[in-house]
Amino acid sequence: MLTTNPFQSEDDDHFREECAVFGIYGSSDAAKHGALCLHAMQHRGQEGTGLVTYDENGDQFHAHRDHGHVGEVFGDPNVMAQLTGNSAIGHNRYSTTGDTLKRNVQPLFADFEFGGLAIAHNGNLTNAGLLREELVRNGAIFQSTTDTEVIVHLMANNRGSVVDRLAATLSRIEGAYSLVCLTRKKLIGVRDPMGVRPLVLGRIGDAYIFASETVALDIVGADKVRDVEPGEVIVIDEKGLRSFFPFPTLKPRFCVFEYIYFSRPDSIVEGRSVYEARRRIGEELAREAPLEADVVVPVPDSGVPSAVGYAAESGISFEIGIVRSHYMGRTFIEPSDEIRHLGVKLKHNANRPVLEGKRVVLVDDSIVRGTTSKKIVEMVRSAGATEVHMRITSPPTTHSCFYGVDTPERDQLMAAKYTIEEMRRHIGCDSLVFISMDGLYRAMGFEGRDNDNPHYCDACFSGDYPIRIADRETPPIARQLSLLKDAS
Amino acid sequence: MLTTNPFQSEDDDHFREECAVFGIYGSSDAAKHGALCLHAMQHRGQEGTGLVTYDENGDQFHAHRDHGHVGEVFGDPNVMAQLTGNSAIGHNRYSTTGDTLKRNVQPLFADFEFGGLAIAHNGNLTNAGLLREELVRNGAIFQSTTDTEVIVHLMANNRGSVVDRLAATLSRIEGAYSLVCLTRKKLIGVRDPMGVRPLVLGRIGDAYIFASETVALDIVGADKVRDVEPGEVIVIDEKGLRSFFPFPTLKPRFCVFEYIYFSRPDSIVEGRSVYEARRRIGEELAREAPLEADVVVPVPDSGVPSAVGYAAESGISFEIGIVRSHYMGRTFIEPSDEIRHLGVKLKHNANRPVLEGKRVVLVDDSIVRGTTSKKIVEMVRSAGATEVHMRITSPPTTHSCFYGVDTPERDQLMAAKYTIEEMRRHIGCDSLVFISMDGLYRAMGFEGRDNDNPHYCDACFSGDYPIRIADRETPPIARQLSLLKDAS
Amino acid sequence: MLTTNPFQSEDDDHFREECAVFGIYGSSDAAKHGALCLHAMQHRGQEGTGLVTYDENGDQFHAHRDHGHVGEVFGDPNVMAQLTGNSAIGHNRYSTTGDTLKRNVQPLFADFEFGGLAIAHNGNLTNAGLLREELVRNGAIFQSTTDTEVIVHLMANNRGSVVDRLAATLSRIEGAYSLVCLTRKKLIGVRDPMGVRPLVLGRIGDAYIFASETVALDIVGADKVRDVEPGEVIVIDEKGLRSFFPFPTLKPRFCVFEYIYFSRPDSIVEGRSVYEARRRIGEELAREAPLEADVVVPVPDSGVPSAVGYAAESGISFEIGIVRSHYMGRTFIEPSDEIRHLGVKLKHNANRPVLEGKRVVLVDDSIVRGTTSKKIVEMVRSAGATEVHMRITSPPTTHSCFYGVDTPERDQLMAAKYTIEEMRRHIGCDSLVFISMDGLYRAMGFEGRDNDNPHYCDACFSGDYPIRIADRETPPIARQLSLLKDAS
Amino acid sequence: MLTTNPFQSEDDDHFREECAVFGIYGSSDAAKHGALCLHAMQHRGQEGTGLVTYDENGDQFHAHRDHGHVGEVFGDPNVMAQLTGNSAIGHNRYSTTGDTLKRNVQPLFADFEFGGLAIAHNGNLTNAGLLREELVRNGAIFQSTTDTEVIVHLMANNRGSVVDRLAATLSRIEGAYSLVCLTRKKLIGVRDPMGVRPLVLGRIGDAYIFASETVALDIVGADKVRDVEPGEVIVIDEKGLRSFFPFPTLKPRFCVFEYIYFSRPDSIVEGRSVYEARRRIGEELAREAPLEADVVVPVPDSGVPSAVGYAAESGISFEIGIVRSHYMGRTFIEPSDEIRHLGVKLKHNANRPVLEGKRVVLVDDSIVRGTTSKKIVEMVRSAGATEVHMRITSPPTTHSCFYGVDTPERDQLMAAKYTIEEMRRHIGCDSLVFISMDGLYRAMGFEGRDNDNPHYCDACFSGDYPIRIADRETPPIARQLSLLKDAS
Repeated sequence: MLTTNPFQSEDDDHFREECAVFGIYGSSDAAKHGALCLHAMQHRGQEGTGLVTYDENGDQFHAHRDHGHVGEVFGDPNVMAQLTGNSAIGHNRYSTTGDTLKRNVQPLFADFEFGGLAIAHNGNLTNAGLLREELVRNGAIFQSTTDTEVIVHLMANNRGSVVDRLAATLSRIEGAYSLVCLTRKKLIGVRDPMGVRPLVLGRIGDAYIFASETVALDIVGADKVRDVEPGEVIVIDEKGLRSFFPFPTLKPRFCVFEYIYFSRPDSIVEGRSVYEARRRIGEELAREAPLEADVVVPVPDSGVPSAVGYAAESGISFEIGIVRSHYMGRTFIEPSDEIRHLGVKLKHNANRPVLEGKRVVLVDDSIVRGTTSKKIVEMVRSAGATEVHMRITSPPTTHSCFYGVDTPERDQLMAAKYTIEEMRRHIGCDSLVFISMDGLYRAMGFEGRDNDNPHYCDACFSGDYPIRIADRETPPIARQLSLLKDAS
Repeated sequence: MLTTNPFQSEDDDHFREECAVFGIYGSSDAAKHGALCLHAMQHRGQEGTGLVTYDENGDQFHAHRDHGHVGEVFGDPNVMAQLTGNSAIGHNRYSTTGDTLKRNVQPLFADFEFGGLAIAHNGNLTNAGLLREELVRNGAIFQSTTDTEVIVHLMANNRGSVVDRLAATLSRIEGAYSLVCLTRKKLIGVRDPMGVRPLVLGRIGDAYIFASETVALDIVGADKVRDVEPGEVIVIDEKGLRSFFPFPTLKPRFCVFEYIYFSRPDSIVEGRSVYEARRRIGEELAREAPLEADVVVPVPDSGVPSAVGYAAESGISFEIGIVRSHYMGRTFIEPSDEIRHLGVKLKHNANRPVLEGKRVVLVDDSIVRGTTSKKIVEMVRSAGATEVHMRITSPPTTHSCFYGVDTPERDQLMAAKYTIEEMRRHIGCDSLVFISMDGLYRAMGFEGRDNDNPHYCDACFSGDYPIRIADRETPPIARQLSLLKDAS
Repeated sequence: MLTTNPFQSEDDDHFREECAVFGIYGSSDAAKHGALCLHAMQHRGQEGTGLVTYDENGDQFHAHRDHGHVGEVFGDPNVMAQLTGNSAIGHNRYSTTGDTLKRNVQPLFADFEFGGLAIAHNGNLTNAGLLREELVRNGAIFQSTTDTEVIVHLMANNRGSVVDRLAATLSRIEGAYSLVCLTRKKLIGVRDPMGVRPLVLGRIGDAYIFASETVALDIVGADKVRDVEPGEVIVIDEKGLRSFFPFPTLKPRFCVFEYIYFSRPDSIVEGRSVYEARRRIGEELAREAPLEADVVVPVPDSGVPSAVGYAAESGISFEIGIVRSHYMGRTFIEPSDEIRHLGVKLKHNANRPVLEGKRVVLVDDSIVRGTTSKKIVEMVRSAGATEVHMRITSPPTTHSCFYGVDTPERDQLMAAKYTIEEMRRHIGCDSLVFISMDGLYRAMGFEGRDNDNPHYCDACFSGDYPIRIADRETPPIARQLSLLKDAS
Repeated sequence: MLTTNPFQSEDDDHFREECAVFGIYGSSDAAKHGALCLHAMQHRGQEGTGLVTYDENGDQFHAHRDHGHVGEVFGDPNVMAQLTGNSAIGHNRYSTTGDTLKRNVQPLFADFEFGGLAIAHNGNLTNAGLLREELVRNGAIFQSTTDTEVIVHLMANNRGSVVDRLAATLSRIEGAYSLVCLTRKKLIGVRDPMGVRPLVLGRIGDAYIFASETVALDIVGADKVRDVEPGEVIVIDEKGLRSFFPFPTLKPRFCVFEYIYFSRPDSIVEGRSVYEARRRIGEELAREAPLEADVVVPVPDSGVPSAVGYAAESGISFEIGIVRSHYMGRTFIEPSDEIRHLGVKLKHNANRPVLEGKRVVLVDDSIVRGTTSKKIVEMVRSAGATEVHMRITSPPTTHSCFYGVDTPERDQLMAAKYTIEEMRRHIGCDSLVFISMDGLYRAMGFEGRDNDNPHYCDACFSGDYPIRIADRETPPIARQLSLLKDAS
């Protein structure tokens, strides 16, 4: 059914952000704003999307959640017409293996004594397995395999107001998360104590908006108010906006990969332009690893801003030497003897006149398994390049992420298994340089990485995990939900 | 999507049975047997159907549940191929107002500490609302609006083995129900203490089958072992079959309407042929209300066996004076000025040569709202009948059913509001006779109704409800689940 | 997609009527009347259906044609809303092998110099292959494999008014056909010179209706005016109704099988009630082949009227000994070792209490391949019948039909290969009697068959083909259209 | 159903290429190659796509044609598995108003005396209306509204071999066209006498390929052999490749807009790199209209290569100041008072940090109606740009195209109605410069436009139409096919 997910290809060798969240309160167009904001954040989750609205007239929540892109799921005016109400929350989600069930599409909704509650979540709870095990032991019935449902059950098992239950629930969960909740009276936004995942507060007219990225505010013409702060809970209701901090104070550790790859270049994340950050990483890389070459060629699309920076700093000509198709990402035709390397060819094509007889600098954002890089280097060489030099705008990704990013196990991470020289040989390029950790921090405006007190979460490069991963330390029993498999 | 549901028409003036259940243990063809048995019981529920199988190899439950007829839902060989395993349970369900959600299609499935449990249910819990309220207050999260989910949550909130939990759960619930449950090791069948709803045990080779009616056994060539007894719990596992009776002994009160209308004529229900019962009711009616006439005409299809009996007893000629179309029951074209009485015409057509100039005895099973009867009498008169006499094979339906049958509120039951003479005038026939209560019991082989100790549940005729309706006595608060409405 | 076609089963051993046609002129509800009339004639064609309307306002034809039942195809109010206009024609069609293409669903539509023409057809042209070959040689491009398109091309290759072109076309075609045509100004109905296929003219208010059977008139409350006569062309336009006979006069030969099986029992065909005809055949059969027995049991549904007649004449009790399911006819589950004889079981179930220990007379309409009869006899015996006697309400079907009925090749017709005694042994019944040819004519009100000048077309029993089959005499080259196969 | 067509938005202000064609002969993977090549040419037609293959084994053509993207239509392995055979032709098509009928999806297929013929076509016949009128007058029945069907009928009305019929047909048609035809024995490629539309010949192993663009060859790893020449007919069969030129020699006039916008930048068209052409147009524009500015910003994606050239020539910094979303192009949410300018915002977002306080040069390829340009200038100004200068890489589009490109009528072309100064004021930019006609030809390697003998078809800029438009000179009667409208 899905057609043009540029991330679904096996040949897309990237970490994958797992979600975007959205919330709005006080708008006469809550669902429309939601669909647009989710569309603007489509890159953060392309497997499924959903909206839940609340309509005071009739005291009714309305939901629509399905697999597919926002434009598919909310493209039907009849669907939109049913999503009445002045407040809403929404969600985009990624597929992770074995998880493509419709019952996992968020927001979740549950009935409580006090009424309905909808909830959506970007991130990952690192003790969800243990909590789930305990909840099931106490009689909870789970319907999805998402860790978000753990939050719902914890809230159901507490007493008191929504905010009291939420506070009690937050004291139990560990991990990285940005949450939005909707009740009949309130919209609530929460960011985890270290602020690993982003969440921004915006305003349009009298309405407040929560969103994972500022591009969501741009598309509806909303103004950014500020980032939700790490550890902050913001409650919005008819009395206005109230903020509190239920956690002990911790040093924030925002995810640096949001700058390198996850966020859209036109987003302002934690006060910093993603485009400028990428461009400066490119400049830094040109200074760290200068070379003689004829053209700087980005691996599209993520490599473009850094390549612009690299070209400007190095004085080497910036050219579109690889053209990307946006129609289709899946390997929709099985390869055969006659037809090889389809994955990369469906998405990328060499622009021969730019490459032929040239010394080429390829700028890309990361190397995860290395499969795509190898194919791209081959393709560029086949197009006649005399030298191919790879410049990577992140340090080597040597560790998995447990904070809401879909990463392979360590033994599949090329940089965890091989030296850089081994990687270079495998990929087949003439030189391979990753930006240094200090260089990355310099590009972000620091003097280098403060190893005692680093500013960002960079665990995937450093192995320095700021939040413990309880489910790994004491593995819960195998997940029962996997017992049920829905036919087709 | 649905195409030929002969019961969905507004012009189908009947009570509606709400469900069929099925279970099998020990068959290498569990899903196929299930699909066939559910097909044979399609008349008991046409809105949706589902199967859950358990496959020991891989320790995996498989489910497929959807709206539509059995032939639609299980007609895809790819779907069937995924439903592997040697045990299964299944369900057909009716639509009741506001309840057409896919999440309500059974069997339900839930994860427990001991593993997965699938459950399906025919009947109605008369204290489900109160139990649900209590469960939500204690932190349970409901996903469906079915009372079956109450059973699931009660089991989750108990401790011990499946059978222990089931026994504890049965002690809490009230109502009429035939249940089947499937775990990794066991198939369980339960019938409520009064045995209001049917459940039969069959055998094919080494496999055991539970089914609501014997026609399900016929279609797969299984032998009937016996009816599950009122209040009996039968547990089947690798050690064989075990039976126990967790309830205090009560006088059984099987639903007499199963004979009059719900069951298929070729079923043997509680040891009695439905066809013979209906034929004898027709004979009894001919004796109770003899008259001079030219032809006996059944209102098809349910009136046929009684009309055969009536004709044989009275000596009046049996003729097919009304022809029924089986292609379509819904009023699929909206009436306009030019096109009237569409509902009945889509399904019934007068066979004029049989009716013209004749004194006609129409034999039908019941009159609920009276709308269809009026139209049929008009149709028969328009075809030239000189007299139209209605003979009804049930007593007047003056009360609603709360035991798993979809009936209108009392104020919509024609017989609750009008005298029989008023009904006759409204319907427009020359005479209208319902079988007497004693006549009904005589046809069933008794001397008449033992009013101190009646053999059947006949509450819809008598108002004598054998099981209290707790939710009516202490209405629970409005159901929160109604707070969420899924768009389209 | 198709769900409940009771004729698609391999175990349905019948000849199949190929089509129903419909036309209306002068109604403000043309499409609604069309959908209803086609629904009433659903039994004449269940693979696909279509309507073309003409709307004077905007000078626009509207079409909707699709696979499926009338209730499915025209159940969408949005579809109906687009079929505006005061005149319409429509069609139901059967599937014949290799022919299930959507492009074959009628009515066909084509552009002519004079404007658009829609056409629908019940029957078969016996020289279609030769005409098609000639047309292709002269540059015609065919889009369907139906012989109806031959008529369209012949009309396109003539000159003058629609009526002139039609007359010229009729002079070229041979076979059995009832045609309806719609232009911007006219509705035209045509019956072939021998009147093999039925076509009736009705009237509702100021509107005229053509339909294959009178049940179509009944459903909309129209009055029958008369049968269109063999060889008659009726042109209806704003000036009223005009009739002409372009053919030399021939003795009519109406299809006698319409009475035995094709038409609905409540239709009046050529002035005769189908129900009465069947009942009288049953009576005749009881006289021709009397025997001692306990019950007369119809093979449902077609055997019912004859069984009523047989029982009345013989004095043997009429009982519903076989119950038919109307939910599903397709063999939707593949048989396996454990599950045998599924085909017949999906549709028919023995009603054991009626059969056990009884001498049973089974009444059925025909035996084509004999496969179903054998299974039904087995089923009845398994239910305990001590004797099983088959009585068939048609003579043995020894020849194929080339006049619009889907019949197997001769070598698959059981009666063409075996003696009646051999058939009896194969089917496994205690006696097998077909009505005699003279008995059939007697039941229809004649003294017997006038062999020099028979009143009906009975070629399938007699081999006496009233119309030559040119395509068989000079086989055209293989059909090119079969060269293209649409994927999925 | 369509999901991500970036061209469907009302806010996409471009001419639209109408088609891509493909053919292959002698490959064991004909359909796979076809699907891949059509995918690579998706930008040339996104409404529908189709393939017809021919399989010698079984002498069978197979077809699959549907609305949607190539990845949707051919993503189902079951579909692909049915498209067996060693030769194939294929087609992508655009939607033009009133033309979205499935029957218009190509390739067309027709039966001839000699067997089947499939045909696909990129371009437009300028005398199709007159030819069609004549054909209908002579009895042809049309099924589609495409001019391709005119070719089919002309071939059917001729005699002799396929090649003879084709030659005779080509002598009748006028216009711009690249055709591919497939018979049981032959693959044929044709380019119109002036070579207005592209067609290239490639080779992979022993198989030959025809395609509209070289990117189709790249994706399967085929080598380019050469362009099919203007007026050339290439016939490929088991004897190899044969070429002939049935037309009188004419000066070629290739469509210059293929370089400016239609073709992919990585295609080599008529021996010239599209990317290099665009880059050189950017350089030329920088020389023709130099100015002081801070950043050069492309309107993505088509403006990128020219912006690279402009930046390199002018020395002004190249930056990604506008970010384009590739998920969705349709205006899927209706604007409301709160939500304005949605069209452009769904696709484009300003990258504020790059634009704020800057003098911006926007580089875009063309201005058709001017609607998008106005919104983009507003968006860039709102992001803080102090000056906005538009540079357009084509001359003003003052005339419609009749050669296979979907253009508005002249009265909707902004440049046909207004002076450049008026356009600038309407769009709201500080300066607006189109490349000069001579500048365009210089960028293409000429000294300027040779007005007596121009090298390209540039009618949309110059009004100099090289092929007469017969249907405009003598308008045929209104098209009858429009008489039939299929309901949903």
